[in-house]
Amino acid sequence: MWKEDNNHLVRIFEFKDFISAFSFMTRVAITAEKMDHHPDMRNVYNKVYLHLYSHDAGDTITERDRKLAEAIDELI
Amino acid sequence: MWKEDNNHLVRIFEFKDFISAFSFMTRVAITAEKMDHHPDMRNVYNKVYLHLYSHDAGDTITERDRKLAEAIDELI
Amino acid sequence: MWKEDNNHLVRIFEFKDFISAFSFMTRVAITAEKMDHHPDMRNVYNKVYLHLYSHDAGDTITERDRKLAEAIDELI
Amino acid sequence: MWKEDNNHLVRIFEFKDFISAFSFMTRVAITAEKMDHHPDMRNVYNKVYLHLYSHDAGDTITERDRKLAEAIDELI
Repeated sequence: MWKEDNNHLVRIFEFKDFISAFSFMTRVAITAEKMDHHPDMRNVYNKVYLHLYSHDAGDTITERDRKLAEAIDELI
Repeated sequence: MWKEDNNHLVRIFEFKDFISAFSFMTRVAITAEKMDHHPDMRNVYNKVYLHLYSHDAGDTITERDRKLAEAIDELI
Repeated sequence: MWKEDNNHLVRIFEFKDFISAFSFMTRVAITAEKMDHHPDMRNVYNKVYLHLYSHDAGDTITERDRKLAEAIDELI
Repeated sequence: MWKEDNNHLVRIFEFKDFISAFSFMTRVAITAEKMDHHPDMRNVYNKVYLHLYSHDAGDTITERDRKLAEAIDELI
């Protein structure tokens, strides 16, 4: 479900409503802070757009992004 | 699943971990603020204890508590 | 501090760290759901980018966006 | 401000409203999960009651609780 797009690991999540979408973002936020690696995340109502890339590696995908993607998949 | 205990509407929720428990609390928080009626909520790791009662009705159960309980049941 | 950009009401918020940024997003989320009008919000580490516009008015700025902007200003 | 009460490290926080209280709980939640040590936290409208103790040390106060208390003090 994750796609590589312009050197970012990208996935779009759709939920039934805003509350469910923001609840997912809260799980992502806690997980990201724990892993000390944070996504670029955007929310529009029931949709959450995640872009994973490593700023300190020139905004490209690294092993840290792949690990974060796996951890996020556990949160759905 | 909700029980009446000492004039409170009470329910205990158990989740697989802390992140899931807090994510549920976030959904409850948004819902409660929207309904302008807030639960007494306690969290210990993966457990969430909710007590619903109406402060302005002498800490007893009112229709507002029953409506909040129904709304919370939709969030699980 | 809010600017009009391409028919969106836009403001960027910068915080000391991710936890502070996400905590602000939580306040925005609760407020938005209460007002039944939601922002387009993006988070990159300690920054939060908010775009306010009304989807049902052709993605342009309406009175609802101005009211949401005022409510968000109270949350900082 | 923290007090020892019945082998718990206890502190009560009061905020201007529910949104501010829950926003603080979100910061505490992220911090706690990061430190892998979680508080017993209760929320009633604008108040947050934190009890820190170590379950695996017989529900008494340990160094982990003192470290968590210090980290929480940074979040206010």
